[in-house]
Amino acid sequence: MSVRSTTLDNGMTVITDDMPHLESASLGIWVKAGSRSETEAEHGISHVLEHMAFKGTRTRNALDIAEAIENVGGDLNAATSVEHTGYFARVLKEDVPLAGDILSDILQNSLFEQSELDREQQVIVQEIGAARDNPDDHVFDLFQQAAYPDQPIGRTILGTVDSVKSFTPDTIRDYMERNYVGNQMVVCAAGNVDHNALVDTANDRFHGLKATGAPAPEKAKYVGGEHRLLSDHEQAHIVLGFEGRAYNSDGFYAAQILASVLGGGMSSRLFQEVREKRGLCYSVYAFHWAFADSGIFGVAASTGEAEVTDLLPVVLDELRKATETITDEEVVRVRNQIRAGLLMSLESPSSRAGQLARQQILWGRPIPLQETVDRINRITADRVKQIARTIFETGSVSLAGIGPVAKLPDYAAITSRLKN
Amino acid sequence: MSVRSTTLDNGMTVITDDMPHLESASLGIWVKAGSRSETEAEHGISHVLEHMAFKGTRTRNALDIAEAIENVGGDLNAATSVEHTGYFARVLKEDVPLAGDILSDILQNSLFEQSELDREQQVIVQEIGAARDNPDDHVFDLFQQAAYPDQPIGRTILGTVDSVKSFTPDTIRDYMERNYVGNQMVVCAAGNVDHNALVDTANDRFHGLKATGAPAPEKAKYVGGEHRLLSDHEQAHIVLGFEGRAYNSDGFYAAQILASVLGGGMSSRLFQEVREKRGLCYSVYAFHWAFADSGIFGVAASTGEAEVTDLLPVVLDELRKATETITDEEVVRVRNQIRAGLLMSLESPSSRAGQLARQQILWGRPIPLQETVDRINRITADRVKQIARTIFETGSVSLAGIGPVAKLPDYAAITSRLKN
Repeated sequence: MSVRSTTLDNGMTVITDDMPHLESASLGIWVKAGSRSETEAEHGISHVLEHMAFKGTRTRNALDIAEAIENVGGDLNAATSVEHTGYFARVLKEDVPLAGDILSDILQNSLFEQSELDREQQVIVQEIGAARDNPDDHVFDLFQQAAYPDQPIGRTILGTVDSVKSFTPDTIRDYMERNYVGNQMVVCAAGNVDHNALVDTANDRFHGLKATGAPAPEKAKYVGGEHRLLSDHEQAHIVLGFEGRAYNSDGFYAAQILASVLGGGMSSRLFQEVREKRGLCYSVYAFHWAFADSGIFGVAASTGEAEVTDLLPVVLDELRKATETITDEEVVRVRNQIRAGLLMSLESPSSRAGQLARQQILWGRPIPLQETVDRINRITADRVKQIARTIFETGSVSLAGIGPVAKLPDYAAITSRLKN
Repeated sequence: MSVRSTTLDNGMTVITDDMPHLESASLGIWVKAGSRSETEAEHGISHVLEHMAFKGTRTRNALDIAEAIENVGGDLNAATSVEHTGYFARVLKEDVPLAGDILSDILQNSLFEQSELDREQQVIVQEIGAARDNPDDHVFDLFQQAAYPDQPIGRTILGTVDSVKSFTPDTIRDYMERNYVGNQMVVCAAGNVDHNALVDTANDRFHGLKATGAPAPEKAKYVGGEHRLLSDHEQAHIVLGFEGRAYNSDGFYAAQILASVLGGGMSSRLFQEVREKRGLCYSVYAFHWAFADSGIFGVAASTGEAEVTDLLPVVLDELRKATETITDEEVVRVRNQIRAGLLMSLESPSSRAGQLARQQILWGRPIPLQETVDRINRITADRVKQIARTIFETGSVSLAGIGPVAKLPDYAAITSRLKN
């Protein structure tokens, strides 16, 4: 086992996965905080902070940060999601200490200067506009709002133009102090790395960090509902969904398998029925997203105005059929897909580092591959049909559509088609 | 050197790169034919063929193909570009023979049945609609048309609704027979693979293939011009460009370095000036795409209606400044980025297989990493400034914009701003 984990005095975990045959490494710092950690007044601040972390520290300005990593051919990136924020670098093996130095600097010593914030607010306003111009992104924002109305978990990650413009250096510092604390942070590296050296760096750079901060975010309350936005796009972009299962819940793996059986590949039920047999779509797939205390099971598709009346009834019938007809053969295929996907992802240092960090944040420890495979292998076709019944028959529907969506079936018709 | 290459009697090349420490392999068949190999009546047929290759062979129907690879946890994919079409599988090491069997079957024994074609035409019509709904994709189609008007290389890869609907099984077979021939095809695998076994499979399955087919496509003639599409998007999506350099031309590597210096990362000139100093954009980058006999040097950005007047003048001034002020330090940084990028990409079997196939198609042989690094290291700042002058000052501009683009500077103003 090449994975090593050390917990520092302040609760921060340092995990490494040594891949000594590689020339490079992927190194990141993950924080268990994202858009759902925000108060209403803070809507979008997790993502603003993620941008502002690159805008200057006590010893480096924004250009110094960019040049330091790019001079050695590395790159630096970050991403904000509903429950996590990650900052990562990919570098050649000899530059791992440099990457650790920069990542810790931007997360401990950022200045958040007013002039930098002014400019970055303009940039994020542009980013919000670009996201709204992409209907595939925009429809997912509407969908999340339909599923979890009036709650942090249902709001967009980017925030609104007004909320983003309202932040000051102090509001950012407040959010950071509350959420970027030892027991919510994981330093993780995979590739050609030295565990003890990384532990020393983390101890040295993060010794001033508080161990604990904000309580967990308010509990998610899945509600469901719909948002339709008529627009002159060529295609109707549609997401339909239900409450799924939380990471630590009993039904998590069964829901994952259900999503793959229904819409995870070319042999999946939705791909075969909607695209291969009927030619209704170019893109149709199912997904299961888990959160700490809830989850979303969904189907996304887009189709032309002429086909929009047919699409949802076909999808709904497939969901209903799945509750009774999923076979052992399908479940075995999905198990093989998950196992092969895990083995292949282990070949990439970025995937390995990301997986280990996610496991630490969600389950409190790195999970050996065989343990995941064993859990998946225990899920039977009966269990998958049972979870399908609970999700589709007893849960309320969330629906979002953008484009020529006037002829979509109405909400009551969708709900009743699932229960007959 | 782990790379081995064998040329078969019919001219097909088989290349493997053995990575014995991996559990998986990436295997593909690349064809030196794409949208620019099409006659006018065939517009979009390369991509239709790429779809139809998954629709059934003499011994497998579409579902059999999908299940065969997904039952073992592998996946199968394909992509069509201007000059190439690729079919690839990623599988665990024990399934490499299966993947080779399926890929060769779909490229030698596909039936192209009328009923399957009818449905797939509908699917591709949906795909065309989806591409037009994404302004970042659509603007590149308009840009390519502005650069190469009335030529195969300037047309969209997907074709039009009318052209796609016009194809018959025979027109697809004709195109395939002309273009899918031994000296235009490369079988390539990287990962845990056996070279001799793959050569045997290729010899066995492709022995009936003709060695030669169509002559090279008509020579590209870069022209330039503009396409503006006013629409109610929130952002103006803009691509500005010039003729770049062909793969085998003298200026190819200098143009690649120029693109990175101008807009290749956070430390690049455009990112610093347009986003970091002025907050005008979320996304701005430069690119250099090479073809066999031409190339495109371009800059892509999107911005709001209020900022659209400022954006292009700032970009144009950066291009003009680059012709005189690029430094040794910037060129060294880009060399380091390219070298590190190459080293990191070698860690992924999919990247390795794709690179080797591309090298074989473009340069007639796999290129050792050190040879590429040596070529790049010979490019000086003076050479990069010289290529910038030739590209920006003597070439004609191509411009495409979608969204609130009414206030973009006019074509004559753009051209004259570059020359002063």
